[in-house]
Amino acid sequence: MGIEIERKFLVRDESWRSLADDGRAIRQFYIAMDKDVSVRLRVADGRQAWLTIKTGAGLSRGEYEYPVPVADAAGLEATRRGEVVAKRRFRVPHGELTVEIDVFEGALAPLVLAEIELPSEAHEIELPAFLDREVTGDGAYTNAALAAHGLPASFRG
Amino acid sequence: MGIEIERKFLVRDESWRSLADDGRAIRQFYIAMDKDVSVRLRVADGRQAWLTIKTGAGLSRGEYEYPVPVADAAGLEATRRGEVVAKRRFRVPHGELTVEIDVFEGALAPLVLAEIELPSEAHEIELPAFLDREVTGDGAYTNAALAAHGLPASFRG
Repeated sequence: MGIEIERKFLVRDESWRSLADDGRAIRQFYIAMDKDVSVRLRVADGRQAWLTIKTGAGLSRGEYEYPVPVADAAGLEATRRGEVVAKRRFRVPHGELTVEIDVFEGALAPLVLAEIELPSEAHEIELPAFLDREVTGDGAYTNAALAAHGLPASFRG
Repeated sequence: MGIEIERKFLVRDESWRSLADDGRAIRQFYIAMDKDVSVRLRVADGRQAWLTIKTGAGLSRGEYEYPVPVADAAGLEATRRGEVVAKRRFRVPHGELTVEIDVFEGALAPLVLAEIELPSEAHEIELPAFLDREVTGDGAYTNAALAAHGLPASFRG
């Protein structure tokens, strides 16, 4: 298990695209989502799957991740809570760090979110210019809330 | 993943003990338990741990099981739902099948349950004489219900 320290932002424009890789198609859903624990299945490019348990809330969360057979993820989809979230995830190098940019599809389009995983809570970073408002700690922007409730009111508004 | 077909019984007497192995100490808890899905951590003899997802209810349930580090199980205990269930599990051979006998400890003593996993729903078995009333499909005797609610009223009564 690890502690995941992550800041999350809306995205201002498309300038990150020239710096990004080709991205991976991600399909994910939750089989449990409570306020302090969620259990997620994620399938990348239809070929690899992981079970991820996240605990706690806010900037630092516990994260436990295990690879599982893709067929298991397919079987578990019948018991999902909320909607399946489909997105394309791109990676943009930023110094020693990586910015992950999720371009959501379907009911969550045109939402685009950027996540930066930090080595420590105190870690200072110069933010890339393509980032917009920070939404770290805004519960409406967690993947679990997006699966349960769709686009946040503060994004639609 | 597999489909688990299992019959469950109360136990009449101690005659099974001379046929049983030495048993394993099991400690388990749930991080999610809804009516159609549960996520359980189990640690055996303090040395091996598994994450198990069960779906559905009744005689045939979906079961997905993954080995995980013992340290992960310890870390996840903070987010458990219900109580930690402690029991000693013994195995008793019964023809081609195995009867698993759970001797519960702590708040669930003196409950003893026997489980027989069957190759198919239609499989006929001659029941061992030490079995008492069948409780298959009685929701109060699932491990999740025991963790959430303690001893069933029909057992205490």
